Amino acid sequence: MQSDLPKVLHPLAGAPLLIHALQAGGALDPARTVVVTGHGGDLVEKAATAFDDRIACVRQTEQLGTAHAVAQARPALAGFTGDAVVLYGDTPFITPETLERMLDARRSHDVVVLGFHAADPGRYGRLVMDGDSLAEIVEYKDADDATRAIDLCNSGVICADADTLFALIDAVGNANAAGEYYLTDIVGLARARGLTAGVVTCDEAETLGINSRAELAAAEQQFQRSARAAAIADGVTLPAPDTVIFAHDTHIGADALIEPYVVFAPGVTVESGATIRAFSHLEGCHVSRGATVGPYARLRPGAELAEDAKVGNFVEIKSALIDTGAKVSHLTYIGDAHVGAGANIGAGTVTCNYDGYFKHHTEIGAGAFIGSSTMLVAPVTVGAGAMTGSGSVITRDVPPGDLALGRAPQINKTGLAARLMDKLKALKAAKQKD
Amino acid sequence: MQSDLPKVLHPLAGAPLLIHALQAGGALDPARTVVVTGHGGDLVEKAATAFDDRIACVRQTEQLGTAHAVAQARPALAGFTGDAVVLYGDTPFITPETLERMLDARRSHDVVVLGFHAADPGRYGRLVMDGDSLAEIVEYKDADDATRAIDLCNSGVICADADTLFALIDAVGNANAAGEYYLTDIVGLARARGLTAGVVTCDEAETLGINSRAELAAAEQQFQRSARAAAIADGVTLPAPDTVIFAHDTHIGADALIEPYVVFAPGVTVESGATIRAFSHLEGCHVSRGATVGPYARLRPGAELAEDAKVGNFVEIKSALIDTGAKVSHLTYIGDAHVGAGANIGAGTVTCNYDGYFKHHTEIGAGAFIGSSTMLVAPVTVGAGAMTGSGSVITRDVPPGDLALGRAPQINKTGLAARLMDKLKALKAAKQKD
Amino acid sequence: MQSDLPKVLHPLAGAPLLIHALQAGGALDPARTVVVTGHGGDLVEKAATAFDDRIACVRQTEQLGTAHAVAQARPALAGFTGDAVVLYGDTPFITPETLERMLDARRSHDVVVLGFHAADPGRYGRLVMDGDSLAEIVEYKDADDATRAIDLCNSGVICADADTLFALIDAVGNANAAGEYYLTDIVGLARARGLTAGVVTCDEAETLGINSRAELAAAEQQFQRSARAAAIADGVTLPAPDTVIFAHDTHIGADALIEPYVVFAPGVTVESGATIRAFSHLEGCHVSRGATVGPYARLRPGAELAEDAKVGNFVEIKSALIDTGAKVSHLTYIGDAHVGAGANIGAGTVTCNYDGYFKHHTEIGAGAFIGSSTMLVAPVTVGAGAMTGSGSVITRDVPPGDLALGRAPQINKTGLAARLMDKLKALKAAKQKD
Repeated sequence: MQSDLPKVLHPLAGAPLLIHALQAGGALDPARTVVVTGHGGDLVEKAATAFDDRIACVRQTEQLGTAHAVAQARPALAGFTGDAVVLYGDTPFITPETLERMLDARRSHDVVVLGFHAADPGRYGRLVMDGDSLAEIVEYKDADDATRAIDLCNSGVICADADTLFALIDAVGNANAAGEYYLTDIVGLARARGLTAGVVTCDEAETLGINSRAELAAAEQQFQRSARAAAIADGVTLPAPDTVIFAHDTHIGADALIEPYVVFAPGVTVESGATIRAFSHLEGCHVSRGATVGPYARLRPGAELAEDAKVGNFVEIKSALIDTGAKVSHLTYIGDAHVGAGANIGAGTVTCNYDGYFKHHTEIGAGAFIGSSTMLVAPVTVGAGAMTGSGSVITRDVPPGDLALGRAPQINKTGLAARLMDKLKALKAAKQKD
Repeated sequence: MQSDLPKVLHPLAGAPLLIHALQAGGALDPARTVVVTGHGGDLVEKAATAFDDRIACVRQTEQLGTAHAVAQARPALAGFTGDAVVLYGDTPFITPETLERMLDARRSHDVVVLGFHAADPGRYGRLVMDGDSLAEIVEYKDADDATRAIDLCNSGVICADADTLFALIDAVGNANAAGEYYLTDIVGLARARGLTAGVVTCDEAETLGINSRAELAAAEQQFQRSARAAAIADGVTLPAPDTVIFAHDTHIGADALIEPYVVFAPGVTVESGATIRAFSHLEGCHVSRGATVGPYARLRPGAELAEDAKVGNFVEIKSALIDTGAKVSHLTYIGDAHVGAGANIGAGTVTCNYDGYFKHHTEIGAGAFIGSSTMLVAPVTVGAGAMTGSGSVITRDVPPGDLALGRAPQINKTGLAARLMDKLKALKAAKQKD
Repeated sequence: MQSDLPKVLHPLAGAPLLIHALQAGGALDPARTVVVTGHGGDLVEKAATAFDDRIACVRQTEQLGTAHAVAQARPALAGFTGDAVVLYGDTPFITPETLERMLDARRSHDVVVLGFHAADPGRYGRLVMDGDSLAEIVEYKDADDATRAIDLCNSGVICADADTLFALIDAVGNANAAGEYYLTDIVGLARARGLTAGVVTCDEAETLGINSRAELAAAEQQFQRSARAAAIADGVTLPAPDTVIFAHDTHIGADALIEPYVVFAPGVTVESGATIRAFSHLEGCHVSRGATVGPYARLRPGAELAEDAKVGNFVEIKSALIDTGAKVSHLTYIGDAHVGAGANIGAGTVTCNYDGYFKHHTEIGAGAFIGSSTMLVAPVTVGAGAMTGSGSVITRDVPPGDLALGRAPQINKTGLAARLMDKLKALKAAKQKD
């Protein structure tokens, strides 16, 4: 990947590759999840436990092959029985449905391998079938022409009873060119012991593994294409679907309108009948029915828009509830705040929430009218139905129904602008002569 | 469409599908336009009459087929004679030129049908020719292999003398599997009465009908592709045409420069030699020769930029004339205003045009210089050549040539920042210890 | 091009076509560069000399063919000896490597022509080989079927010793249908004089010439495609590469993250480990390691972000150094300024750098804390560790560690908001009754 970041932490649709695999596996509700790390293990372990702190992480200190990697998980699985599924941190598209089908297939087979029919089988390992059973997995380089003609290929994903899996892995040897212990060898070993192996197949696209930045970019495109198609099929109005960027966990209700050039970072829910206008950026936020966002609105984590709320252009919202029907129309920063129902926030308003060391809360009452370019120096409360004059700096609470003003009186200095401009003009002319 | 909105009201290039059909038909300057509605009729009728209040709307309460639908228009056409053209609200790409050719063909034929040579005729009805005349329209399911081999297909668009049309429709029966009255049957009926039918063909793309959100998205793409190609052919400079989104009525002059990521909502005219910079959003506005917009500028309905005016980044303009050579360069909201020729508006300026109930006007004179973060509390006038000091709240008119100031004097409190920060720092350290 | 602008001045990747050709030629470090102009010569000459003032420009006043055009350069090359390379202002993709190979080939041949194997040779001139030598260049219209079957085509780029080149050009006649002097004729003339001609080939894409706006758009796409692939190959993190627009001279370090919808205008360098967030626009600026830009940030020429600096949403930076770890998070304009290390700039801050005639400098000390919506009326200095209160207008220097305030005291007018709103509400109701 030409990167200091471990491969499995490179993001796809806003989440590290690893998290995609963990989410697929997690959907099976496993009793235990173990992540085997290698290169950049500290960072990978941190990401895995941040995602779910019940995950156990074990380190493979020597890279001796896939069977050896899985063997590292054994101590962390002590006391756990039942089926084990082996997934890969760089293979993000395997679906929970596919894994469920593998578990179902375990009723008929001791070992279940996930395969796919490849359009171009290339150098993939081939799955050699014996009727309904898997006879063996043959690496490309060991395959004869007849075997290479098979288009059923090995994804590497495997499922078996945990005790069986580890017993088979114990028997895997490394008498091969690379001197590595290959997990694929367990199929032959199982058959030799009178156990059966079977294959479940999925779409080739599910098995896509990421080995370069170019492949990651292609995977991102595959994700976006299918996310866009799914949103259209769900009844979302998307006039320019190819310009909308989804995250792995974006939820959008039917009949919501998403205009062109909208970016969804992770953690966004948009309800039916909401409108996200062009050039908006949303992350970790919730937009209710009837609410309007943008154009050029940025909703940061913790932004919550109640029904019919409006957030307009060049507005940033962070950790704030914009209550029912409230309007924040332009050029405003609202952070660490509650904007009451039906309140109107004038252009250029800022919640001054940060003093250099702490963040403070701003409370704006229902129906309040905040004049343009009001500075709300938090912590501060503006009561229901209160107003602030344009350009006021509000440092003390404003009782409900009051008008707060902090404004120097306007003075018109007669003819002074004309004199100033004449002076500057003359100065400029003199300078240009020099 | 998986939508509460009637299909023909879903927008394409910023206008409901229905409006595209009405615009095509309207270009023929018809004496009478009748819209036959069904599902969601109230909303459709509202949209049709909002587009043109002379349009008559009639409701088809039972969905008994296309001939039955057209028959509903009869009372609304009482007293009108001459040719009638039947169009469809979900078929937005038929061009006026094609309709003109159909009217021309009426000189040779009593009934004229619009056909197209399909790349993949699939399940379309086939047009069976008899020399230069149309013998019959055969539905796919009724067609034998020889007929299915025909690639000339029926678009459904039909033209005939109104009296003839309704006389033929009277004779249409519903003795078919669906029990519906089909408009296509009038061709056979016409021939049986010794009348002639003819075919006019158009490009298959023109006949595209919309039946799902996926088809709507494809139609939008088809529209954008051809709008971009047309703009390039017209001499517009478009460094990244695929990133510019046009509306159905966007007009752009030759040698205008449109940078990447510009969205044109409906109602925009950009003159030759104007520049629209990246990430701009324009709607219902006019940009004159030599004017510059953006990047990140939003022109809302009623924005008018005179020659050489400049609207810069993070600026919103609404219902305002920015006069010749005036500059609104950054972080500003100008609404309900006139900015005089050559005036300069400082960053952070806001026209405070809304008092919670009414909108008021701001007048800025030619050559005025508005200091940064000036609040112009409308209604208010700043005279020609006047200035306002940065951070002033202007509530009263400023005479021409005057300098208006509303500013508390600056006080430097010696060492106070250092003491405050020390205190906050200590507090933070104490809290972190807890 | 349907344009008032001369063709070679239309921009590709942010630089005029001509400049691309001059950069390719310039990489050979030529002793002399001559630009032959025709249509729109004044503008072209201005662009050429602005790019490099050592370039000589000569005017071809009559358009008598390519050999005649090259002949115009002769006086400007008086006294210069050695190889001459003929390039075209509308052919922007020729690489320095290709030109180096042509110069190498000059060791074996007196005249070297750049050819390419065309996928669809169409109406290109054909290169007829005689073993390793070029026998002649045959124009398509003069070619017989056998010659037309050749897919090796003429790019027009030619290299020869300057004296030889002009001697051959002297011999070129215009006895052809167009009455023009063709540069391609020098190959036959060279052979007739016992000189040898050779061919160097390059990828067809390199030889792309621009003759219409549609071809220019295609060339831009070709440039962007290869710039994106190169960035990915260099280890830049690009989740949506197709949405990032590069300029001809964009430099981005490995492991920098470039989010979707970023536009690089010319003159940008982004170091490794920097982050450019979505919807940002950069031009003529430098972003250091660990710095973060955007979303919705605009860096204009002269913006310099030191390590770990942060420029956030709806912020414009021009001719300013944002020093190590300083933060300009939102809704701010910083122009002609230095923001000291670790300083924090509140939302809505403006450096008021322009008085209508002159631009002035703002100096902000290390660790300073600028309150929201502070107007810094330049020239002005805020000392290290100083603070300004929100909404202050700073017209005089603030000593280090001081707190500067310019703020009218807040007054709460009891019940006045409620009375005002009641009055407006009644007025509105009355108006609606009218």
